[in-house]
Amino acid sequence: MSATLRELADLAGARVVGEADRCVARVAPLEEATADAVAFCADERHLPALRRTRAAGVLVRDEHIGACPATALVVDDPYYAYAAVAQHLHPPQRPAGGVHPAATVAGDAELGAGASVAAHAVVAAGAALGEGAVVEPGAYIGPGARLGADSWIGANAVLGAACVVGERAILQPGAVVGADGFGYAPGPAGAGWRKVPQLGAVRIGDDVEIGANATVDRGAQADTVIEVGVKLDSHVHIAHNCRVGARTVIAGGTVLGGSVRLGAGCMIGGQTAITDHVEIADGVTLMGMTGVTSSICEPGAAYGSPLPAQPVRQWRRNTVRVTQLDGLFRRVRRLEATAEQAGGEEGGEAGA
Amino acid sequence: MSATLRELADLAGARVVGEADRCVARVAPLEEATADAVAFCADERHLPALRRTRAAGVLVRDEHIGACPATALVVDDPYYAYAAVAQHLHPPQRPAGGVHPAATVAGDAELGAGASVAAHAVVAAGAALGEGAVVEPGAYIGPGARLGADSWIGANAVLGAACVVGERAILQPGAVVGADGFGYAPGPAGAGWRKVPQLGAVRIGDDVEIGANATVDRGAQADTVIEVGVKLDSHVHIAHNCRVGARTVIAGGTVLGGSVRLGAGCMIGGQTAITDHVEIADGVTLMGMTGVTSSICEPGAAYGSPLPAQPVRQWRRNTVRVTQLDGLFRRVRRLEATAEQAGGEEGGEAGA
Amino acid sequence: MSATLRELADLAGARVVGEADRCVARVAPLEEATADAVAFCADERHLPALRRTRAAGVLVRDEHIGACPATALVVDDPYYAYAAVAQHLHPPQRPAGGVHPAATVAGDAELGAGASVAAHAVVAAGAALGEGAVVEPGAYIGPGARLGADSWIGANAVLGAACVVGERAILQPGAVVGADGFGYAPGPAGAGWRKVPQLGAVRIGDDVEIGANATVDRGAQADTVIEVGVKLDSHVHIAHNCRVGARTVIAGGTVLGGSVRLGAGCMIGGQTAITDHVEIADGVTLMGMTGVTSSICEPGAAYGSPLPAQPVRQWRRNTVRVTQLDGLFRRVRRLEATAEQAGGEEGGEAGA
Repeated sequence: MSATLRELADLAGARVVGEADRCVARVAPLEEATADAVAFCADERHLPALRRTRAAGVLVRDEHIGACPATALVVDDPYYAYAAVAQHLHPPQRPAGGVHPAATVAGDAELGAGASVAAHAVVAAGAALGEGAVVEPGAYIGPGARLGADSWIGANAVLGAACVVGERAILQPGAVVGADGFGYAPGPAGAGWRKVPQLGAVRIGDDVEIGANATVDRGAQADTVIEVGVKLDSHVHIAHNCRVGARTVIAGGTVLGGSVRLGAGCMIGGQTAITDHVEIADGVTLMGMTGVTSSICEPGAAYGSPLPAQPVRQWRRNTVRVTQLDGLFRRVRRLEATAEQAGGEEGGEAGA
Repeated sequence: MSATLRELADLAGARVVGEADRCVARVAPLEEATADAVAFCADERHLPALRRTRAAGVLVRDEHIGACPATALVVDDPYYAYAAVAQHLHPPQRPAGGVHPAATVAGDAELGAGASVAAHAVVAAGAALGEGAVVEPGAYIGPGARLGADSWIGANAVLGAACVVGERAILQPGAVVGADGFGYAPGPAGAGWRKVPQLGAVRIGDDVEIGANATVDRGAQADTVIEVGVKLDSHVHIAHNCRVGARTVIAGGTVLGGSVRLGAGCMIGGQTAITDHVEIADGVTLMGMTGVTSSICEPGAAYGSPLPAQPVRQWRRNTVRVTQLDGLFRRVRRLEATAEQAGGEEGGEAGA
Repeated sequence: MSATLRELADLAGARVVGEADRCVARVAPLEEATADAVAFCADERHLPALRRTRAAGVLVRDEHIGACPATALVVDDPYYAYAAVAQHLHPPQRPAGGVHPAATVAGDAELGAGASVAAHAVVAAGAALGEGAVVEPGAYIGPGARLGADSWIGANAVLGAACVVGERAILQPGAVVGADGFGYAPGPAGAGWRKVPQLGAVRIGDDVEIGANATVDRGAQADTVIEVGVKLDSHVHIAHNCRVGARTVIAGGTVLGGSVRLGAGCMIGGQTAITDHVEIADGVTLMGMTGVTSSICEPGAAYGSPLPAQPVRQWRRNTVRVTQLDGLFRRVRRLEATAEQAGGEEGGEAGA
């Protein structure tokens, strides 16, 4: 794929300063770009690299034009523009539509125009693929499941029975959507746990991305819901009955307990854990490794809980102290009481 | 599947108050149930919904009969009874037995009556499936592995060579049982690590459930053991040589180090980590995100370690203080010494 | 596979004390070894078992010869020697080379001598397998990917397009190498996230092992790099653009953010999280559950951050105190000021 800088500027809503007719074929970092490449400069830290770049064109902010030796494509947000340009120059290699001879597609499955099913993938009875949907090798589309137009399910990923994915969504390889939720009823002593059938499905909106080996469990009665534009990183786990609000982003290894409700536009750091039934308002930020055990109702709030890494010797001294903290507070309270009393006596003396 | 309320009452050991002959076809929440549905009311919080429900029947505790506008199925534990009723009305859709033409089953594999092997699944040499066992698409049963009667291995899950699963067990999609344990011997400086062959297998008891993309590694010499009735959530990791006691439940993302011994009937929260060789007594509860580095010998104990999420500004102030805690304890000790001395002097003065 | 103790001693660089001609067929723990087995005794804790062992031979340190009732194979490091002996007596069962009839291999894929591709595995266009490479059932080798000589990709594991694995490497079942990195550009308010194409690949060195269901994402522009001899445990996540230095070992469930640089020879505990762009020097040790948010520049340093598990009642009292710590430090400062003042006054008095 190649394009002129003019075409890319139009695509990105950029103003061109310099030669617009040069043709480029790829994106590259400022340092590595050559005459066939377009780069971007997002902020001041990259100005030295910008001054030395050999790129044909660079996406830059207005105030950096002076430092740009190449054709400048001037935009408010070079990184956001870069994403569009990179998508244009490096489109994913969509397979030619159709069903591979070594795939297994049920007779009553519906395949939209241009949909493709790769080798050893399975599309079960009653399932449906939208136009241009892509099923990679070894992926599984369960009975009655639906993968929307232009959506993509990666190698060996699983979309369980009756689960629904919107358009332009991506399930990375190994992702499992629609496994049973973790629901068991405790029996009388010694009887163990009785499995509670997980009767809901998973509904995933348009433009969602689910990371490699991430898991989204089906609901116990109602559906688990991932709204439009949500991005889940690798190893994220969304338990049964959760609702993740539109455009929320969750980094790697984070685990949501059952029935958690995350607002829209949240940013959740990696390795975080959110307890069952917690509700989190729109636009909340959680630092990585945060443990959330009660609801956060203030939209846009930022929360954290992790401890900073310390040299082990120091850590050993300090963390044992954490287990003695309550006692320390009492000791300080006693000292304060003594000091107040002494102060009072002194005051008394002073007044004497 | 449908049943009369009488039949469901018999199944659940319930006493019927009201019309027992009504026929229902599904379970539903109190709020959404209609005349074809049975619901449950586990506690007081749901009494308003109970009073308004349109369900044909409701599983209730004796003290809530008065609030039940439908036929009451009276039991001690409505949720436990609900699980049985839901299993009866919504049985998993077992495939018709037999081997799919696109499956690969070794000539010497044993298949019990009614066992099924789906498309692109593999049952390797010397493996055995019990009666009614289900192998979903793309799943792999390694050489000499055994999947017990009525057990179920999900899409693209893996049961490694020589590993054994009991009856009525479930491996959710993407689960990996029997990967090599993480065992390496450190060499002399610069030589790196030498792989220690992992010669044990994994033995999984009856009625165990292993979550989506969870992993249970094979033992180094002896087997890794998961006892009967254990439930592991998605992304749980059980390292080599562990033993997880009967009916213990482990929530999502928890990691057990090598040779950990967990007692029976434990409840382990999500994102927890347990260090190598730790032993934990029966019936222990660990909160989510707890780090366990030494054994817990008291049966039934409850442990925790995570910090509560705080607003980031407050978190920043407090967590830097954690790294200064040991110093604070010393400062308080000095203040106490000073106060004691002063108190002594004062005492002296008072005595003077 | 069987061998004489002499042959094993040669293999392990051991000195034989006792009968060298005895033949053994397996390794076993000291307690379970019989006359066909060789065992090892790594340290003093195992001396009682050593004295009672029925093994034909035992790998021991020089100072333990006296306690060894069997032929002693004397080495400096019995565990490291054991790994070599166990590898020799229990080699992995390599499949006979060749392509299973139910595998799918692209016409232009290159297969080295003795390479094998199992049932329902896929080797895509332009991919290459080195001599003796093993592709297990259901595994996927993407377009242009390369799996080096004697490397092994487990059941249902995924090696993405253009990713490269060195020699003698192992990808355990369910591992995903080369999924897209987690890269999105935020748009103007409400516009959501725009996917940034992930154009790099993953390069994995010789003798690397990637755990079950672990994930290594492809780079955004340059490649993600795992250097020679690295060992990643199950569920480890390596984000885009990371570089993990040679022979570094990372335990289960640890998550690296984007562009992290880990030095060589590091030992990283489980459930740890390292923030984007952090750099960690060679030979650093991180305890399990550590959160690292800034670079660690001192080679060989050891860091930790987790809190010890406490009984829940005690935990409740202490952790609420953590959220009040900053205030406590201020209170102690005030007490110290008061005490100093009082001390000063007293001093003044003394000087008077």
